[in-house]
Amino acid sequence: MAVDFPDSVRELVVQLRRLPGIGPRSAERMAVWMIHQRDGAVAQLSAALTRVDSEVQLCPECGFFIDHGGCAVCSDQGRDSRMLCVVEQPTDVLSIERTGQFKGRYHVLGGKLSPLENVAPEDIRIDGLNERVSGERVDEVILALGSDVEGEATAHYLAEMFARTSVKVTRLAQGMPAGGGLEHADPLTLMRAFNDRRDA
Amino acid sequence: MAVDFPDSVRELVVQLRRLPGIGPRSAERMAVWMIHQRDGAVAQLSAALTRVDSEVQLCPECGFFIDHGGCAVCSDQGRDSRMLCVVEQPTDVLSIERTGQFKGRYHVLGGKLSPLENVAPEDIRIDGLNERVSGERVDEVILALGSDVEGEATAHYLAEMFARTSVKVTRLAQGMPAGGGLEHADPLTLMRAFNDRRDA
Repeated sequence: MAVDFPDSVRELVVQLRRLPGIGPRSAERMAVWMIHQRDGAVAQLSAALTRVDSEVQLCPECGFFIDHGGCAVCSDQGRDSRMLCVVEQPTDVLSIERTGQFKGRYHVLGGKLSPLENVAPEDIRIDGLNERVSGERVDEVILALGSDVEGEATAHYLAEMFARTSVKVTRLAQGMPAGGGLEHADPLTLMRAFNDRRDA
Repeated sequence: MAVDFPDSVRELVVQLRRLPGIGPRSAERMAVWMIHQRDGAVAQLSAALTRVDSEVQLCPECGFFIDHGGCAVCSDQGRDSRMLCVVEQPTDVLSIERTGQFKGRYHVLGGKLSPLENVAPEDIRIDGLNERVSGERVDEVILALGSDVEGEATAHYLAEMFARTSVKVTRLAQGMPAGGGLEHADPLTLMRAFNDRRDA
C-alpha cells in the first residue's frame, strides 16, 4: 500500500478543505506548514478559533458581530441615530465603515430576498428593521444593498414597505467604479451610469 | 472611531494570515465563514489542529511524518531495504509514492545545502544517511532532489560522499515534462532533454 499522510494529518486536511476558497492543494500545504511549526503557532490558531467559536455572536439589535465587548456600533453614543443604513451582511458594515463617510447606525438583514432560494421577508431581519424605524427616531433609511437581482428585489420590497411612512428612503448611487476605464465596464453598469449622469 | 471586527475576530484574522498562501482578504473571508458556522465545524477544525500539533513528528529513522501509529514506511516489511531514495522534504515521499514506481525506503534530508541561507551539511540529515547506508545493506541510493541550484549542489555533495564506497548512486532523469510541448519548455530543460536523448 502506498504511503500517505498519517491519519491525524489527513483529518486536518479534510477539515481545512471545508474553508472557503481552500482546495486540496492549499489544504495540504497548510497542514504541512502546521506540522513544521514548533513555536506554538498552531496552538495559538486553535485558541483563536475556539474563542471566536464561543464568543462571537450577532448583535440582537443591529445584526453586526459582537463578542464579550458588546456592539461597537450600537454602544457608540456619537453616532447619528436618525440615519439607518440597511445592509445584507455584517461584513458590509465594515466596507462602509472603511469609507469613513457614514456616521449613522446600521441594520444587517442577514440575507436578501430570493424566491429561488426560498428566502422570504420573514427569513431575514425585516421585522426588526420595521420595529427600529417606528420605535427610534429615524429620518432616513439608506438601502446599501447589492445591485444583483436579489439585492434589487430586496431594496424594492423595503422601499414599498416604508412608502406609507414618513421616513425618507434612499439607495446607493450606481455608476462607474472609481479608477475604471470604459473598456472594463459591463454594459449594464455603463447604461446606468449614462442614465444617472449628472452635471459636470 | 470606525467600527472594526470584534477583538476575537481580529486576533483570528492575524493567526490565519500566518498560514502559507493566505492574504488579508482570504483570512477575513475564512474568519467570517467561521463565525457563521453553527454545526461544530470550528470546534472540529480546532481539535484537528491540536491533534496534529501534539501527535505528528518526524520519524527519527527516515524523517517522514509519523503520528502515534509509527512510521508507515519504516514499519513496512514489504519494502526493499536495499534501495534508498533520498529526498528533501517529507512531502516529496508522498509525491513519489503517488507514482507507484518505487518500493524501497526513503531518507528525508529535511532541507538542501545552501551557502546563501547558511545551510551546511551538518544542518540537514546527512549524518543519518551515512549511518543508514553503512549500517543497512543498501545497494543503491537514488537522489530524488530538486533540479534547482541547491538541489544540484546537494546531489553533487552526496555523490562525492558515496564515491569512496561500493554503493551505487543514481539521480532522477531530467528532460521534458509529460504532456508538455516544446513551446512550453524553458531552454535549460530543453538543453538537458537534448543532451540526455535516448534511442527511440
